[in-house]
Amino acid sequence: MSPDPLRSPGSPDIDGFLFVGDSICNSDMFYLSRFLAGDRFAILLQERTAILVSSMEKGRAKKESCADEVVSTQDYHITERLKSSGKLELAYAEVLKDFLRDHDIMRLGVAYSFPAGIFQHLSPHFDLQILESPARRARAKKSPREIEMITSAQRACERAMRRAADLIASSEPQADILIRQGQPLTAEQVRSIIDISLLEDGCEAADSIVAGGVQAVDPHARGTGPLPANSPIVIDIFPRSKSHRYHADMTRTLLRGEAPREVRELYDAVLAAQEAGIRAIRAGVSGEEVHLAVSAVFLDMGYPERDGCGFTHSTGHGVGLDVHEPPSLGEGGEILEASQVVTVEPGLYYPDIGGVRLEDLVVVRGAGCDNLTRFEKDLVL
Amino acid sequence: MSPDPLRSPGSPDIDGFLFVGDSICNSDMFYLSRFLAGDRFAILLQERTAILVSSMEKGRAKKESCADEVVSTQDYHITERLKSSGKLELAYAEVLKDFLRDHDIMRLGVAYSFPAGIFQHLSPHFDLQILESPARRARAKKSPREIEMITSAQRACERAMRRAADLIASSEPQADILIRQGQPLTAEQVRSIIDISLLEDGCEAADSIVAGGVQAVDPHARGTGPLPANSPIVIDIFPRSKSHRYHADMTRTLLRGEAPREVRELYDAVLAAQEAGIRAIRAGVSGEEVHLAVSAVFLDMGYPERDGCGFTHSTGHGVGLDVHEPPSLGEGGEILEASQVVTVEPGLYYPDIGGVRLEDLVVVRGAGCDNLTRFEKDLVL
Repeated sequence: MSPDPLRSPGSPDIDGFLFVGDSICNSDMFYLSRFLAGDRFAILLQERTAILVSSMEKGRAKKESCADEVVSTQDYHITERLKSSGKLELAYAEVLKDFLRDHDIMRLGVAYSFPAGIFQHLSPHFDLQILESPARRARAKKSPREIEMITSAQRACERAMRRAADLIASSEPQADILIRQGQPLTAEQVRSIIDISLLEDGCEAADSIVAGGVQAVDPHARGTGPLPANSPIVIDIFPRSKSHRYHADMTRTLLRGEAPREVRELYDAVLAAQEAGIRAIRAGVSGEEVHLAVSAVFLDMGYPERDGCGFTHSTGHGVGLDVHEPPSLGEGGEILEASQVVTVEPGLYYPDIGGVRLEDLVVVRGAGCDNLTRFEKDLVL
Repeated sequence: MSPDPLRSPGSPDIDGFLFVGDSICNSDMFYLSRFLAGDRFAILLQERTAILVSSMEKGRAKKESCADEVVSTQDYHITERLKSSGKLELAYAEVLKDFLRDHDIMRLGVAYSFPAGIFQHLSPHFDLQILESPARRARAKKSPREIEMITSAQRACERAMRRAADLIASSEPQADILIRQGQPLTAEQVRSIIDISLLEDGCEAADSIVAGGVQAVDPHARGTGPLPANSPIVIDIFPRSKSHRYHADMTRTLLRGEAPREVRELYDAVLAAQEAGIRAIRAGVSGEEVHLAVSAVFLDMGYPERDGCGFTHSTGHGVGLDVHEPPSLGEGGEILEASQVVTVEPGLYYPDIGGVRLEDLVVVRGAGCDNLTRFEKDLVL
């Protein structure tokens, strides 16, 4: 968790690296400061880390952030500047300029996502370079403490999945749909029990996917209405802990009733592909190679991707402060390193059969990977 | 809700306005597209609105967004470009360039927060101008439908506040703290009952403030541990509806036990200041004037701001898709317009007495304002 290597940015060509944004949306900023704020602030990385916040946030920033120095926009007279210019963005840019000059900045690195408006204000005064965020590589490799936090979110995810599975198991197939206590069991009811379980575990109730039948054929559809009988229901839960802000991510496909033969075959193919993907993961292998290993199983088993059907997405992604973060297990996916945490989530989607996806969360190791996921893989409840 | 005026951007000097980002963090993008996505996509505003999404999101975007045209990065051969360049950002910039050229763009507007990296990629090829987002003014004035949605979130907020107040009322003061069922009643327990109530109402369980005693003196502190007896407890709830994504925002200050005289006086001053603020609001008055009216009451009643104590923040802010959005009711606050929705939330904070804040949500009208808030203002439970 100690971002020491970031404090001396790799490139000798810059005097510091600047972030401006909020740390709810910009996880690099939370990672580097451990200060959670929905309002805009700035982080300057040098040998030491300085943050610039509004005067109202100064006390909290001193208490909560890991920065070496906390200064406020009031220390740089933002109110007076605002009165003279009448424009908040202009006043803020002037404050930033003085803050940077006080830290002897001439050559400044900023990330790809840095706000263009501030970039334009600063560029006449500093030698600005758009560089890879120094947090990017550091964030991809997780410390033991970070893996602990992800694992705790994963346990919360599994408890929520259990509640969902139990609820579906307590329903009965009647004709095309599932009935519970005389009423159709809906995606909303299942999502609600997932949300409450996550909340009890101190996690944010994310927008979990509970999608059955044709709905599950679009891998991003959230799912609504009565759940189908005898048809696969995809449940994808990706909570974020409210306290430490790390995510987990898991998908299971469940079916209540009789599983048609083609659904069972689909499920077996996805399971085989997932196992191949997990077997392929180790430090030094590329994310693309893992993806190709998964795709090869589908091809072998007679499920080529065609006309937007079949295996239509990548195999997985990194998980941490963001639910989707590097590295990618897909086309162009880079070399994996030990201690990265990634999902392995092949799926097959056909309008006439339904959707099946299985997703586990694993830690890349030198000679393979550790699976953080403990939930069984059984199609039929 | 129909963003018609935005489709012909005000300035005749541009051929279109481009956004690139995700619509969870960038509410302008959700407002303009009504397409909710955590992954990056692009919106091009011209007479018609076009959005550019990943191929995986194309189906959902066609179904859910209000865009006139939906195209995918695959339609612009992103995979092939990625293979040839090996760099995702380069491949994405090439796709964007072709997308813009297909829409006859030469002069392009982007917002202040537009990613600097993409700005730099595009600037050799287009005449780029950083301009105010065309959504900014439109978003500040709410349509009747938007006011309905904010009101529904406000009702959820009030139900959660009722549950919190009932829980605190069911405790008994013993020495310095509140006791319930033989145990100290904690901020966490109150926050949990608020979260569950919000969840039942389809709202995201935001990070509500439940802060008593000295904790309440920092207006941004969330509050932890046993709640104090005979001391004001600030409860600030700001839920977002999961379905329509509009917020509400309300604060009450509650006390269980005996209210010391100086706390009662503080409460009366905040109430008087809030009433003065609400009376000052109407279309044509500036946010700064409203703030000055509130500050004047505190000064009159003997509560000047000094040494970081007293009324240390602004009077209020706009509420909508973001919980903090324009207009500001503070220093430099602009002229208010009819149909804006703003908070009125004066507070006083003293380490030796505690914190008191009261916050209502109102709609600016031509001849005053409509208060959307229905929760009573009683200090002692």
